[in-house]
Amino acid sequence: MSPVVGSAFFLFYLLALCNASGADIALDAKATLLHRIDSLNLLIYTCLLTLTVLTIWVFKHRRVSWLHETGLAVIYGLIVGAIIRYASSTNQVTYIDAHPAPDTKYNLSVPPDILRFRFPDKIQISSGDTVPNKTYAYSFRGEIVNLEQNEIDLKATFDPEIFFNIILPPIIFHAGYCLKRKYFFRNLGAILTFAMVGTALSALVIGALMYGFVQLMPASLASSFTFLDTLYFGALISPTDPLTVLAIFSQLKVDVNLYAMIFGESVLNDAVALVLSGAIQNYEKRYSVDGGFEITAFLAAIGDFIGIFSLSLLVGALLGCFTALMTKFTHVRDWPLLESALFVLMSYAAFLIAEVFELTGVVAVLFCGICQAHYTYNNLSSDSRNRTKQLFELLNFLAENFIFTYIGVSMFTFPKHHFDPWFIIAGFLTSTLGRAVNIYPLSFLLNLGRKPPIPMNFQHMLFFSGLRGAMSFALAIRNTVSEARQAMLTTTSLIVIATVVLQGGAATHALAYLRIPTGYDALQGQNDENEALPYRDVRSETPRSGEAGEKARLARLWGALDSRLLKPLLTHARPPLTETLPGFLSPLARILTTTRQYTQADNSLRRTDSDSDLCLDEPQPVPTSIDPQQLWPGLVDTRISVEGITGSNI
Amino acid sequence: MSPVVGSAFFLFYLLALCNASGADIALDAKATLLHRIDSLNLLIYTCLLTLTVLTIWVFKHRRVSWLHETGLAVIYGLIVGAIIRYASSTNQVTYIDAHPAPDTKYNLSVPPDILRFRFPDKIQISSGDTVPNKTYAYSFRGEIVNLEQNEIDLKATFDPEIFFNIILPPIIFHAGYCLKRKYFFRNLGAILTFAMVGTALSALVIGALMYGFVQLMPASLASSFTFLDTLYFGALISPTDPLTVLAIFSQLKVDVNLYAMIFGESVLNDAVALVLSGAIQNYEKRYSVDGGFEITAFLAAIGDFIGIFSLSLLVGALLGCFTALMTKFTHVRDWPLLESALFVLMSYAAFLIAEVFELTGVVAVLFCGICQAHYTYNNLSSDSRNRTKQLFELLNFLAENFIFTYIGVSMFTFPKHHFDPWFIIAGFLTSTLGRAVNIYPLSFLLNLGRKPPIPMNFQHMLFFSGLRGAMSFALAIRNTVSEARQAMLTTTSLIVIATVVLQGGAATHALAYLRIPTGYDALQGQNDENEALPYRDVRSETPRSGEAGEKARLARLWGALDSRLLKPLLTHARPPLTETLPGFLSPLARILTTTRQYTQADNSLRRTDSDSDLCLDEPQPVPTSIDPQQLWPGLVDTRISVEGITGSNI
Repeated sequence: MSPVVGSAFFLFYLLALCNASGADIALDAKATLLHRIDSLNLLIYTCLLTLTVLTIWVFKHRRVSWLHETGLAVIYGLIVGAIIRYASSTNQVTYIDAHPAPDTKYNLSVPPDILRFRFPDKIQISSGDTVPNKTYAYSFRGEIVNLEQNEIDLKATFDPEIFFNIILPPIIFHAGYCLKRKYFFRNLGAILTFAMVGTALSALVIGALMYGFVQLMPASLASSFTFLDTLYFGALISPTDPLTVLAIFSQLKVDVNLYAMIFGESVLNDAVALVLSGAIQNYEKRYSVDGGFEITAFLAAIGDFIGIFSLSLLVGALLGCFTALMTKFTHVRDWPLLESALFVLMSYAAFLIAEVFELTGVVAVLFCGICQAHYTYNNLSSDSRNRTKQLFELLNFLAENFIFTYIGVSMFTFPKHHFDPWFIIAGFLTSTLGRAVNIYPLSFLLNLGRKPPIPMNFQHMLFFSGLRGAMSFALAIRNTVSEARQAMLTTTSLIVIATVVLQGGAATHALAYLRIPTGYDALQGQNDENEALPYRDVRSETPRSGEAGEKARLARLWGALDSRLLKPLLTHARPPLTETLPGFLSPLARILTTTRQYTQADNSLRRTDSDSDLCLDEPQPVPTSIDPQQLWPGLVDTRISVEGITGSNI
Repeated sequence: MSPVVGSAFFLFYLLALCNASGADIALDAKATLLHRIDSLNLLIYTCLLTLTVLTIWVFKHRRVSWLHETGLAVIYGLIVGAIIRYASSTNQVTYIDAHPAPDTKYNLSVPPDILRFRFPDKIQISSGDTVPNKTYAYSFRGEIVNLEQNEIDLKATFDPEIFFNIILPPIIFHAGYCLKRKYFFRNLGAILTFAMVGTALSALVIGALMYGFVQLMPASLASSFTFLDTLYFGALISPTDPLTVLAIFSQLKVDVNLYAMIFGESVLNDAVALVLSGAIQNYEKRYSVDGGFEITAFLAAIGDFIGIFSLSLLVGALLGCFTALMTKFTHVRDWPLLESALFVLMSYAAFLIAEVFELTGVVAVLFCGICQAHYTYNNLSSDSRNRTKQLFELLNFLAENFIFTYIGVSMFTFPKHHFDPWFIIAGFLTSTLGRAVNIYPLSFLLNLGRKPPIPMNFQHMLFFSGLRGAMSFALAIRNTVSEARQAMLTTTSLIVIATVVLQGGAATHALAYLRIPTGYDALQGQNDENEALPYRDVRSETPRSGEAGEKARLARLWGALDSRLLKPLLTHARPPLTETLPGFLSPLARILTTTRQYTQADNSLRRTDSDSDLCLDEPQPVPTSIDPQQLWPGLVDTRISVEGITGSNI
């Protein structure tokens, strides 16, 4: 170390030349303090998650099933939130009242982005230092509603937008990426009815009932809620998040169709509720500009809903298909790291593109996930399959538990809670009613046209699985400007906590009470939460007599389009496009078919591609020695009745 | 869809009851616009990374090796940065000059955190609307140096702190996690000398020379640089980042010792430079408070450097060992998802704990990574090994390419660049000289005590591998308040770009010109960048005659401590503590030894644990049928001369 010691004396001399200003350094110290507080907040959540992981391990080890990790995360969050609230000292936030400079010219009705503030200007600094005048930039943060409530603002809370931009995307992508596709498509009609019609219906019923409730309350409260407010509440409380129930389902191997309905609905109704709440807010904007109710504004809101939903879907699906094409026609699979990076980047691009065009990124990411699983996944190298599967599984696990921990902590630390007992009671009642209105009447209507009807105990279980979760909370905390919105946040948080902990804990008993059959083999390794993508072995499937006749027309059409056009176009699946496209398109078909598609003679694709047997009802044993070239055309011809597209080459 | 249509008319009536204020909605629109701009910025980087991935695939496919992915990322970044700068319209940022309210009491010398601003107050709004008076919060952002330069601020730039909190941690953790441990420890003396002494020396030389240079420049410039400024520049430009060169090394299978020296030095000198620059800033604080040079402040700065470095190391190492203990003594390995989550959370906690205690999180994460690889990795289930390895590999790839893309883009879009030709030329000259001062004199000193000396062509290659990268840039962009700091940022960016593109491109030629032998088999699958952790097969190692005698005393001591105390304590490795600890500690030893440690009779551990043969010089063929219980004690006894700790049970 002698050079260091030697150089010390050299330094000694030179340091006499230094100079720096005192105020700058005090500012640095302040920035350091804020950074430490931020780090501490994150550390609290990291420790909470670690604790959750360890406790869950103990629970799994001892086969305790009445408390799921999300329920545990909420409970730990509540405990730590209370400790932070009542035990820690407040962070001193300093503030000054400011006025515009006397001769300011400004011609917008919104406050400016930046204030340029001269400090200390004419303020007397009592500490005695002479502080040089400097100009500092202050950026817009939000309206101050309660001038006294400043201190708690910095305590273990985050910008609500991080939920939509960081926490929800991996959760939703993962949901799409592991949608159990075969059973999903088989129950497509029921899932779409519950998710699209049911969620809208539920939002409307909850909104109207809540509006009735608040009118019965004391006048001061009633006036603070508009119908749009309660309708917004209806939209945000409608999406379900039955994680806890589904974990128990996969543990007990509950009927796969019930699983698919509950999971499929919960995935899609998140998207519906998000777009619906956006449309309600857009209506609010249009409406208030004109100052009165207008049919155009209302129609525009409906147009918004349909337009944003379908465009977001399109963006997600296109990016997914584009990734599939890239992985099909390049040899990027030779470098799994590059391939995985490409996969992640394209999926994230779907989110960003949607956000840039004022669509809904989370919805785009959902449909991107579905397409990535359906097409791109089949083109990936096995290394990338594992890597992407495990990456998103881990991200999903961390994000999900973080959000539930945060729900617990923020009950105590978020400064904008407003406890209103009447609103809370009304919220619990109407959200239960809303779920009932979603399930029972729609099940009745569905059963009119459905071959194996949804039995009554399944309906009760669907009703029971109406837990509220991450999406409801994220929507509620997004806007807490008015007292009405704050009351909604509090009510939503309480509903989420109650349903996740209590309903989640009672799920096993509910299954037993409703006599829902458990122990299906077909579920094994397929709906297991640890198995992000179903590597389904066709042979292990048990023939299920009851549902043989159930083939939705929608699912058939889709199945034909998928197996004859999309699959051959986007993956290496057989039959190639040269066989499925009409003759006059054969030059194009030849360009879009890879040599691998022509030449492959093993059935590896068929085995790993879990949804190539989409819409097949009977299990099809695949002998390992058979030539798939023989097997495939037969499958397509006899088992899928092709509608809409006719194959000329078979 | 009939319920939806039916409900439309119901809605129609109720919507007449709605109400909202105009200013709120305008604010919403503004927030939406800002969010879109943020998303667009991220999208630009996502597309750039996608483009980089695809181009790199083409390059790898065609075996082009003169341009590494980081060089490509920089070039794409520069192109897109120029387009953004010159082609896009500016984002209109609105601002108002503000003054404190007349009767404000405030007794701190730093500007307040929050301004409470009444709007519109007395401002004439020319748009004609009557805007109600409201109070808005504005939070502190920074000093405004140039009052005209507001607009470009929002263009594709990020808060510099994201580098230290989001981008660098996974890069540095990954570096620690895949440090080639055997060769690293064999060359520990040289690596520590280059990284610790060399970096400090280089920083000092560059700082002093730069100070001399600026004194020769026009007076206006000379006065804006203090010696502390140039010393800070010396510290930030000293760490090397020879990614590009290392990629070529592993492609061409260059000598492993050279690889270990260059990689090990670059990993550690990042940590040294980071702590060194922090110590310089701390000195600045202490110094200016007192107003004159003080020996105490100087000694405190040296104390800072040593204290922060060793405490950060301790935090990281402790968290790593704690994770090892948790994975050893629980059965969390039965649930790989929980295990991986625990691994990630604990590693992140190391970063956060260091930051909370005002240490250096990045340094903690580095040593945490080294410990996780050395101990925890051996306890993990094979699923978790793959998962963590692949996760950090992917994160590292994305983070690394993002930072290089950002270096390119920010050359054009970052508003606080200051092009000063003299300073830039001086920067290039001194940074080259600084590298030379690091390598040649220290190699000379090392060769005095080193058995196989570092040959001259290796020294030249060490000198040549002095590329600058992510850490230099992150340190330079952290503080751009003064003109001096802005000139440093510009110079640093240019040095990084030039070295990564030009030196990186010329690396193959340099290897050939310096006649450095390539094609070593021992490197295969071990130093490959795609292989995050070396699953080294002992048998494939080529005996290397020259280095048989090289056993650093430090490495021996460490090897003994490691194999007799730490490995048996923290992992399931044999021999168990009951055999290595002195007799009087045997009750404790029994508690800390798992049944698996006693009972395992297969040599799986030995095969997967790449550094159990730490400090062994001769390759030791491990026959697959031999009983490791026989093999192990012999290995420990004959090949490692145990110093410091004596084993009583062997």
